Amino acid sequence: MAEVLIGGSKQAARSYSFDEIAIAPSRRTRNPEDVSTAWSIDAYSFETPLLVAPMDSVVSPASAVELAGYGALASLNIEGVWTRYDDPEPLLAQIAAEDATTVTSHLQRIYSTEEVKTDLITQRIKEMKDAGITVSVAVSPQRTAQLAPVAAQAGADIIVIRGTTVSAEHVNPDGDELNLKEFIHELDVPVIVGGCSTRQAALHLMRTGAAGVLVGFGGGASHTTSDVIGVRVPMATAVAEVAAARRDYLDESGGRYVHVIADGSMGSSGDIVKAFACGADAAMVGSVFARATDAPGRGAHWGAEAWHRSLPRGERHLMDQVGTFAEIMNGPSTRADGTVNIVGALRKAMATTGYSDLKEFQRVDMVITS
Amino acid sequence: MAEVLIGGSKQAARSYSFDEIAIAPSRRTRNPEDVSTAWSIDAYSFETPLLVAPMDSVVSPASAVELAGYGALASLNIEGVWTRYDDPEPLLAQIAAEDATTVTSHLQRIYSTEEVKTDLITQRIKEMKDAGITVSVAVSPQRTAQLAPVAAQAGADIIVIRGTTVSAEHVNPDGDELNLKEFIHELDVPVIVGGCSTRQAALHLMRTGAAGVLVGFGGGASHTTSDVIGVRVPMATAVAEVAAARRDYLDESGGRYVHVIADGSMGSSGDIVKAFACGADAAMVGSVFARATDAPGRGAHWGAEAWHRSLPRGERHLMDQVGTFAEIMNGPSTRADGTVNIVGALRKAMATTGYSDLKEFQRVDMVITS
Amino acid sequence: MAEVLIGGSKQAARSYSFDEIAIAPSRRTRNPEDVSTAWSIDAYSFETPLLVAPMDSVVSPASAVELAGYGALASLNIEGVWTRYDDPEPLLAQIAAEDATTVTSHLQRIYSTEEVKTDLITQRIKEMKDAGITVSVAVSPQRTAQLAPVAAQAGADIIVIRGTTVSAEHVNPDGDELNLKEFIHELDVPVIVGGCSTRQAALHLMRTGAAGVLVGFGGGASHTTSDVIGVRVPMATAVAEVAAARRDYLDESGGRYVHVIADGSMGSSGDIVKAFACGADAAMVGSVFARATDAPGRGAHWGAEAWHRSLPRGERHLMDQVGTFAEIMNGPSTRADGTVNIVGALRKAMATTGYSDLKEFQRVDMVITS
Amino acid sequence: MAEVLIGGSKQAARSYSFDEIAIAPSRRTRNPEDVSTAWSIDAYSFETPLLVAPMDSVVSPASAVELAGYGALASLNIEGVWTRYDDPEPLLAQIAAEDATTVTSHLQRIYSTEEVKTDLITQRIKEMKDAGITVSVAVSPQRTAQLAPVAAQAGADIIVIRGTTVSAEHVNPDGDELNLKEFIHELDVPVIVGGCSTRQAALHLMRTGAAGVLVGFGGGASHTTSDVIGVRVPMATAVAEVAAARRDYLDESGGRYVHVIADGSMGSSGDIVKAFACGADAAMVGSVFARATDAPGRGAHWGAEAWHRSLPRGERHLMDQVGTFAEIMNGPSTRADGTVNIVGALRKAMATTGYSDLKEFQRVDMVITS
Repeated sequence: MAEVLIGGSKQAARSYSFDEIAIAPSRRTRNPEDVSTAWSIDAYSFETPLLVAPMDSVVSPASAVELAGYGALASLNIEGVWTRYDDPEPLLAQIAAEDATTVTSHLQRIYSTEEVKTDLITQRIKEMKDAGITVSVAVSPQRTAQLAPVAAQAGADIIVIRGTTVSAEHVNPDGDELNLKEFIHELDVPVIVGGCSTRQAALHLMRTGAAGVLVGFGGGASHTTSDVIGVRVPMATAVAEVAAARRDYLDESGGRYVHVIADGSMGSSGDIVKAFACGADAAMVGSVFARATDAPGRGAHWGAEAWHRSLPRGERHLMDQVGTFAEIMNGPSTRADGTVNIVGALRKAMATTGYSDLKEFQRVDMVITS
Repeated sequence: MAEVLIGGSKQAARSYSFDEIAIAPSRRTRNPEDVSTAWSIDAYSFETPLLVAPMDSVVSPASAVELAGYGALASLNIEGVWTRYDDPEPLLAQIAAEDATTVTSHLQRIYSTEEVKTDLITQRIKEMKDAGITVSVAVSPQRTAQLAPVAAQAGADIIVIRGTTVSAEHVNPDGDELNLKEFIHELDVPVIVGGCSTRQAALHLMRTGAAGVLVGFGGGASHTTSDVIGVRVPMATAVAEVAAARRDYLDESGGRYVHVIADGSMGSSGDIVKAFACGADAAMVGSVFARATDAPGRGAHWGAEAWHRSLPRGERHLMDQVGTFAEIMNGPSTRADGTVNIVGALRKAMATTGYSDLKEFQRVDMVITS
Repeated sequence: MAEVLIGGSKQAARSYSFDEIAIAPSRRTRNPEDVSTAWSIDAYSFETPLLVAPMDSVVSPASAVELAGYGALASLNIEGVWTRYDDPEPLLAQIAAEDATTVTSHLQRIYSTEEVKTDLITQRIKEMKDAGITVSVAVSPQRTAQLAPVAAQAGADIIVIRGTTVSAEHVNPDGDELNLKEFIHELDVPVIVGGCSTRQAALHLMRTGAAGVLVGFGGGASHTTSDVIGVRVPMATAVAEVAAARRDYLDESGGRYVHVIADGSMGSSGDIVKAFACGADAAMVGSVFARATDAPGRGAHWGAEAWHRSLPRGERHLMDQVGTFAEIMNGPSTRADGTVNIVGALRKAMATTGYSDLKEFQRVDMVITS
Repeated sequence: MAEVLIGGSKQAARSYSFDEIAIAPSRRTRNPEDVSTAWSIDAYSFETPLLVAPMDSVVSPASAVELAGYGALASLNIEGVWTRYDDPEPLLAQIAAEDATTVTSHLQRIYSTEEVKTDLITQRIKEMKDAGITVSVAVSPQRTAQLAPVAAQAGADIIVIRGTTVSAEHVNPDGDELNLKEFIHELDVPVIVGGCSTRQAALHLMRTGAAGVLVGFGGGASHTTSDVIGVRVPMATAVAEVAAARRDYLDESGGRYVHVIADGSMGSSGDIVKAFACGADAAMVGSVFARATDAPGRGAHWGAEAWHRSLPRGERHLMDQVGTFAEIMNGPSTRADGTVNIVGALRKAMATTGYSDLKEFQRVDMVITS
């Protein structure tokens, strides 16, 4: 990153968001049909490189099964409503209907009245297993030691450890913290961990043995981390930096390829395309799917930051509902705003610039647009 | 272009839109009457360097004839309503009247219910030929091999092959694709081809034997390519890069001058002026003419992207109607927003900076304004 | 100016508007009472460095006299309503009352129905002379040869030749154009001429023998030159460049100091302060005075661009009326938006940064703020 | 700071506001409970590094006492309503209720009808002393010589000399000005002085013997200094520059550490966090506390600039009331916009980036975000 002087001796790295960059066509084109969007991680292969963020507004056991049918990998948050309540549907309906001024207290109440129950974790995983899909669940770093083994035991195929910022080195005077490296080593299933946003932080996460790292702070559409705690790394730069860490680690490890998964701040198919162009192997998306008419959130969208008891850093957003999950994934579309036919848009972007697979597409030419 | 580091090893070229630049007067001025806006390509000469974009909202056989009278070269889209329907007027009226929420499906229906008919192509070209104008028609790259010969046969003088991004090297595993170089060589009429937006892509298009290349993605006012597929090169940079390719090719070919035609993203006379200042030989404009009270679109404006069946990348826009075609071209004007008296504005810009013809004006001083 | 690459081989100079810069305090401060805002040009001295733009909305013979009393130099446009009509007051009232959609045609009519009359020029100058003020009038470059001698004969003390862009070298195939250098040499009164916006253009204007040059295109609040003809040089850069030309010419001429007068794009006292900080000796202001309750425009504001017959490049604007001419100049103020007590604000800015006169203040530290 | 050419030979320093920067997480994290926000200056220690700005909208004797209980140091303005009126509560209520169009004249009247009374200064300080808190009061530089000794005599522990711009060298032809260095030397209590915004100006202020310097112009939310007098230095750069002056002076003085206190332009907890990241030791905040339901301003917020008799440079703003002083300081929060639980947000920011105290946190990585 280009270092800039803020003042005195304080340097800062000039960073770019997806809004500030674009993809430039080159001298070759191709047909969208001749393009592959396949992605595989560890032993698992998918038709698309899309992960669905572990947010109650988009992922339920049922929606995870449906989305798997379209080639997307949805992670169920096992600290959300589905593992706290036997039947969370009435609560989900209530969140969507609640007034904007009271919805945050409402969320705080819903997510504190009932605790997470391990037998519900087991049951939800079984529901998804029974449907024959690759099952992914997500936990927060704080509860990973306690809940991830439960999920692994219940048959989860991929475990996502996801927080606003997750580091390989969490300093704790008491010393009873999660040692990520040991934990991942002992766990039987592949782990995806993050968010991170800098080259150094990513490199350390890669050394824990994770199969993938999440880049970003999650929930770009719904979180306010920047306003509340001043922390932000614009996503185009963050993805490109972590992609550089992937290369560093590939060399250092003698060939272990850790997947770089852009997480959040992608509100349209154009943003998702840009994430791959910056070096992402896959993209974890929330708001795009919260716009589905069949999303569990019923048009409402929120993340775990929104229900924090003393310092919420996110809000419930009401989204335009633009189509079914099926239409949002593969069209057809009657909208020209990048909200429907995400996979078609990705294919078209690759075809327009002449690339046939996602790994090659990471080399596409880019421009700074403002 | 100045390379900037996005992050890691990912570079991007800093690019500029017309909004970010302006023209600086120099030490000389001149009278607007002493300025020439003449433009010629191949054997054809025009009083103005303005092309009218092949969009059903602005070009019908009748409007092409009228605009020719004012010195502009309008291209009829031979995959639009005029070659699908005997009488498209009721459909055009319907598009203008349709509600915003349903108009995209409506467009998809209109452009798929009836196929393009070769006898209508012949008939429309004859209508224009009979009026004694230089006839230009446009085809998409996908249907060029099939339809361009029909148009040439019917007497079209200039053929425009126009897509969002057209490359000289379209990769196709089946191998039955259009070979642009051979095709243009065999065709009897001069060809204008594009869009392209980078120096390399333009150079390859120039090598196909085209008389002119289109710079840009067309339809700046109506398309959403950037939101949907993340592809964009701001126009000031794109035109300047392709103008550099023109010089490269001039040298490489031993003197063949390929015209650089800015296409789209010019919503006012000020933008058009800036295109010439960046190195364009001519400008293809849509929205400016869609504002005519006598435009076929009746105030509505849309491009071919808007009727794509599964991934529309454009919308119908309703424009302010500001005057007749005659007034938009040559005034007089009672508006100060750059929408009326385009030719007068171009003359005034050249006069204010002391240039007497468009080729010289390409050297005018410029500033970055933000 | 820092050169930036737009694309290809096209360079542009990075330029700054007043909005993008600010003044930085230094280690010294001073009391506002100990600051001088005096300005003198040729044989004439003024308490303030403020000129009032030759626009019918702000300068009438009566307002010129009143403003002189507060230390400002107002120029009457001798091609405006006061030299076309015996009693223009009803027309001025009409312009203020006219609907936005029809006001441009209305202006075109008012300024074409009656021609400029030389006896009215003589009479208006006499009215101001009789009040004992330094009389300044303004003409367009097109009519300078014809009207400036009339004004000089009638006793005008300072003549302003003002157009959007005025060059020392106006190229004309017929050869019967104004030779500025000869004309100014022969004229008996000091001349201020402009606008110009680049170092080269300014240097050539200085060589004509002018006492001052206007920087900018005038009428920042009311003109749309950038939209219509794409021409613009942001003012902070323009003033700094022309101030450099002043130094060039001072050396070249062996000591002739030509005044640099910022003209337009200054909508608040903060902007006026910034013009001096960039190197201006004086500031010609329009919109600031159009906000006076006693301005001839009655709250409306427009420039000569707005009444162009075929290509208007300006509009009538309706302004907030914020106080009398006296209050706008010297306060007291009950507003915190930089519209009232312009001279007080200038004093305060100089005092805050420790400078005691305007020439020194040209050296104040500045920052780029965005 | 990076120097940029505006034009000619005029240079300017590229400066950044808090909006343009953000904090980047690193490879370490920590628990918010393991973080210290302690701050001490001279002999006084505080649980938080937050000062409350001497504005009548936020600091009364009673609110100063309450805020001290939460670890914040509030300064009473001894030229405000509490030292002019026996009972200012009705006036404060009136200011909040007054119409926007008349409130400035109203403020001018309230702050001029009654003069500052030294016995009220003594009484207000006694009220705070009696509550057992560290008492801080603020004076303007103009009245420091007269009023600061009164405050010191009455028992004030820390005296703040605060103006828009305060310099160590105030030039006065009469010579009867405050000599800050002598004055501070003679005064028995520690002095905080400012605002300043450049390295040189800060260095000179540090040499006066002040315990702390204020960075900025105060009242970012309520002042319009930039519009009125064109003076502004964006805060991220200003704080970083003054932090550099702290290092310069530490060396020059052989070890005297002068506290750098960011003052103003911090409207959310995110902004406050960024001030520390840029090098501040403490932050003086106004608008954040004006949003308290128990603030003296009753939702209204204004600074001393707003009641200037001839050139007001600030306005009364009506703020959203978001919670009690207690909630704004320490939560819990039901809002995600950085207005509630300021201390919790600061802790979270430090924990997320792995720092355990504020001095270390000054080294956190930063990015330029736009």
